[in-house]
Amino acid sequence: MNATTKVKRRHFLIGSAGTIAAAAVGGPAIGQDGSEPLPDYVAWKDPDDFIVHSKQTLETKRAAQGSELITPSNELYIRNNLPAPPDEIVADRDAWEIEIDGVANPGTLTVGALKTLGVETVVCVLQCSGNGRAFFDHETSGSQWSVGAAGNVVWTGVPVRAVIDAMGGAAEGMNFLTGTGGEEIPEGVPKETIQVERSLPTEAIDQAILAWEMNGEPMPLAHGGPLRLVVPGYYGVNNVKYVRRLALTAEESPNKIQQTSYRVRPVGVSGDPSQPSMYEMNVKSWITGPLMDAATGKVQIHGVAMGGVSDLEKVEVSTDGGQTWEDAKFLGPNLGPYAWRPFILITELSEGTHMLASRATAQDGQSQPEEFPPNERGYGNNGWRVHAVDVTVS
Amino acid sequence: MNATTKVKRRHFLIGSAGTIAAAAVGGPAIGQDGSEPLPDYVAWKDPDDFIVHSKQTLETKRAAQGSELITPSNELYIRNNLPAPPDEIVADRDAWEIEIDGVANPGTLTVGALKTLGVETVVCVLQCSGNGRAFFDHETSGSQWSVGAAGNVVWTGVPVRAVIDAMGGAAEGMNFLTGTGGEEIPEGVPKETIQVERSLPTEAIDQAILAWEMNGEPMPLAHGGPLRLVVPGYYGVNNVKYVRRLALTAEESPNKIQQTSYRVRPVGVSGDPSQPSMYEMNVKSWITGPLMDAATGKVQIHGVAMGGVSDLEKVEVSTDGGQTWEDAKFLGPNLGPYAWRPFILITELSEGTHMLASRATAQDGQSQPEEFPPNERGYGNNGWRVHAVDVTVS
Repeated sequence: MNATTKVKRRHFLIGSAGTIAAAAVGGPAIGQDGSEPLPDYVAWKDPDDFIVHSKQTLETKRAAQGSELITPSNELYIRNNLPAPPDEIVADRDAWEIEIDGVANPGTLTVGALKTLGVETVVCVLQCSGNGRAFFDHETSGSQWSVGAAGNVVWTGVPVRAVIDAMGGAAEGMNFLTGTGGEEIPEGVPKETIQVERSLPTEAIDQAILAWEMNGEPMPLAHGGPLRLVVPGYYGVNNVKYVRRLALTAEESPNKIQQTSYRVRPVGVSGDPSQPSMYEMNVKSWITGPLMDAATGKVQIHGVAMGGVSDLEKVEVSTDGGQTWEDAKFLGPNLGPYAWRPFILITELSEGTHMLASRATAQDGQSQPEEFPPNERGYGNNGWRVHAVDVTVS
Repeated sequence: MNATTKVKRRHFLIGSAGTIAAAAVGGPAIGQDGSEPLPDYVAWKDPDDFIVHSKQTLETKRAAQGSELITPSNELYIRNNLPAPPDEIVADRDAWEIEIDGVANPGTLTVGALKTLGVETVVCVLQCSGNGRAFFDHETSGSQWSVGAAGNVVWTGVPVRAVIDAMGGAAEGMNFLTGTGGEEIPEGVPKETIQVERSLPTEAIDQAILAWEMNGEPMPLAHGGPLRLVVPGYYGVNNVKYVRRLALTAEESPNKIQQTSYRVRPVGVSGDPSQPSMYEMNVKSWITGPLMDAATGKVQIHGVAMGGVSDLEKVEVSTDGGQTWEDAKFLGPNLGPYAWRPFILITELSEGTHMLASRATAQDGQSQPEEFPPNERGYGNNGWRVHAVDVTVS
């Protein structure tokens, strides 16, 4: 671990404690001291739980994640590519229309009609592709998320498979599941440059749902209500908000967000469609407490761990910077392969500074690497070393 | 089904839709139209989701329960035997002290100390003994709950077993686990008459925890923070709030709440310790939608089901008043034997009025009876017929 990494990590230790974060990272963050109100469209959230990077990017504080089985809606992070549509779109939720295309019998369905085609509830991690970006050594554009662009959420909606079946099945020669967001495109702006439209491999149909409920409540507008495409196991950007068209398509969307954004490539290289897109999430974990200080003697080290697209095998905790590891205990029921699991290890810490790290291993064999390779946009960071915290015990 | 039963049920159909309930049942309810604020100590809850029977008894609306996997804290019902203690008791949560007695080495532990002894997370139904009381034909004293004195909640705390072990194990000859609440007893009132102190069979130790978190947040004062005894599978009253003493005892508490209250006995008979106490919950389910009206064609019938102290085997739905039954589908992951499971059945309804009923069966073989026997205080009602709803389809 070089000095730069350490400095970056220390910034986030401070950040985890609250208000100083925004200033410390020097980015476009809005200072947030708990008294300043959140942006109007998320005014119902708990201001104490957030680091506000911008009006469209609100990060959940690391300490607030705690050992939560489910992330309460008022704590869940926000990352919008475009401003949310006006409130009116959730005034009559069942009347919201979605165009279904690339099927034998294309047509338009209301949410009310979708509700009669099938229902499923799934718990999954919602996580921004750039979660962990702040831990990279190299300069990256985009929000400097540490760990708080992630939450574990309950979604209810109709399986995409049931919708396709109801429309007569897939048309021939279709290779992608393409969802189009309902954000307003300002006049004069070519829609390809900003419209949220993502194309996913058709395997995603196995788990994708069109969801109208989040955490047991009608989907909040700020999270994509009245209807959101939810693809368990896939990074946040693929979970298209206010979805107004769902299509099986032969080609990927021509839009920038699909063609060149969200592509993993070496530092300094431009995005292009030949590079891997940010689809399936990887195995990951992080400690959420203690983050800075602890008393000597017995201490609870806790955090959250996720398998990406697989159940977890184990999560280990180290209190000596990765020299030795001990299995932590999962807390509460397993909510399925796409959900996170809180974990806990009760151990003794002596006086001094200890580097606490966690490392998750999934049942599909994936395990967190010590370092995740740098990449141009700072995506997918699951390296255990940079996610570690230095805790001073006295 | 006689006429009286039908009238009572109809009241609750109205009640489930909102404000008219309080007037319709004619009890001590405070009218609640969504604009009147909730009592101060629960002002953070969503007023639209409640029927306010009194300052100490707030019922979640049936429609609000929906098909929720977890009940959000701001929707969870309130039933307090005594007013909540002042806010100050949650100012320094880790400093709250609990006396541990009836063990080899009795003593006092802080919440901070409890947190180093072990941690578990459990999801379980919290349900008042009198939930369903309003559906009995006979007159009953006590809050006229329909289905809303219940919720499915995530709790985190230390297993009671770990606490007993840490204190050297149980003393000899102890038959009960006795928890004492921290409510203030007004001067001059004999504590036996009102103090919340419950004694449970020692088998309850297998699943009991001392919980400091509810739904991933520090335990709200209104729900027993900073520390609550949570006994998964047991009726609400046994989950002692602001718990300040936990003891293994040879005898049951001498207090009224243990000796004569919460005893199941025939109508007209006084409570006494020879009668069964309200400990383990029974198998139960109810429909949460639709409740009054529906459109012809396909409709989603949904609700919640619980096995009491056992995993569920199945839940069936009838749309013809119990003549025929069809298996419903469970929604989302199984959160364990003490949790409820939302269920759904998509079916077609023709024009007219249909009596929609649900009937749960647990893996331990228990099933909801058609009628639950009347009893003096109106406890434990899990009869499927009175929980049914008449829905008019047009």
